[in-house]
Amino acid sequence: MLKELNFIRILDDLKGIQRAAYVLGGERNENSAEHSWHVATAALVLERYANDEIDILRVIKMLLVHDIVEIRAGDTILFDDQAMETKAAREALAATELFGMMPQDTADELRYIWEEFESGQSADALFANAIDRLMPILLNHNCEGKAWRQHGVSRAALIVKSQQIKDASEELWGHALTLVNDGFEKGWLTS
Amino acid sequence: MLKELNFIRILDDLKGIQRAAYVLGGERNENSAEHSWHVATAALVLERYANDEIDILRVIKMLLVHDIVEIRAGDTILFDDQAMETKAAREALAATELFGMMPQDTADELRYIWEEFESGQSADALFANAIDRLMPILLNHNCEGKAWRQHGVSRAALIVKSQQIKDASEELWGHALTLVNDGFEKGWLTS
Repeated sequence: MLKELNFIRILDDLKGIQRAAYVLGGERNENSAEHSWHVATAALVLERYANDEIDILRVIKMLLVHDIVEIRAGDTILFDDQAMETKAAREALAATELFGMMPQDTADELRYIWEEFESGQSADALFANAIDRLMPILLNHNCEGKAWRQHGVSRAALIVKSQQIKDASEELWGHALTLVNDGFEKGWLTS
Repeated sequence: MLKELNFIRILDDLKGIQRAAYVLGGERNENSAEHSWHVATAALVLERYANDEIDILRVIKMLLVHDIVEIRAGDTILFDDQAMETKAAREALAATELFGMMPQDTADELRYIWEEFESGQSADALFANAIDRLMPILLNHNCEGKAWRQHGVSRAALIVKSQQIKDASEELWGHALTLVNDGFEKGWLTS
């Protein structure tokens, strides 16, 4: 059996990793597989709004694989400071195991692109991170800030943690800020 | 608000479209959003096995958007002949509505690429369709043929409807056939 087919089988587990965000108007939590589809497709239709020139294939590859490490390391909530401290080490171990299941060249390519996403420095990684930060704002705004209220998120903290949207796209940041301010006015975010 | 952001909000509904396949070892049905992620990521790691030269960006775009029409038209099961008869007309209407929400150039590009996937003629579309057919075989084999048994699928019909895998990749077809034959021997598929 091909090594890749075994890797693809294991990917099925990402459908069982629960995120903080809610989908379908607040009906249930999102899982990391459907989230990965949503951000990759969003990047596809928002490409033109990037501040800098980007390579959309690399951006989409990043978004397709960016959460795969959660199959071993679990989802870490952005506003859980304690869990965020150990996130990098836990995920690096998971990356070694999971990408290492494949032939060396494929493993190396995906490991490199995942690390580029994580460091968030290149124009491609910045745009991919921006879409990843934009999506929970859209989803929270869709269901009366359900996850924001549940985790007591403040507007100030959300703006700080969404800075990558501004760095990647002034235009998307303008729209994101409108949604954040609207959520604050409606009482879904604290100050 | 940007037209694209409104489209991205509507995409959330694909997470509520249930497919025949089961995930997580048979725990629950798969939804079309997580399926779309799984096939796009599978295409990414299986690119080298295509019989013909393919443009992986176009293949991934096809797989990201191939099921979006189900938001309006629902999922149509491959082995439900009656529903398959009306599938094309229902989905064409849905495509006009959904892609039409976006600026003309984006709408035109995605409509074109979706139609190319549906017609399955180009090398890119053939490979994308092959991955879309391969995945239910992998998932069914993962959970003792649960969806095959539920729908009384025969090995003969499955082989006919999986022909695109053979046309797109001899090597993947060899592996798929091994899984199909194993499923038949285990009694998960009828003859």
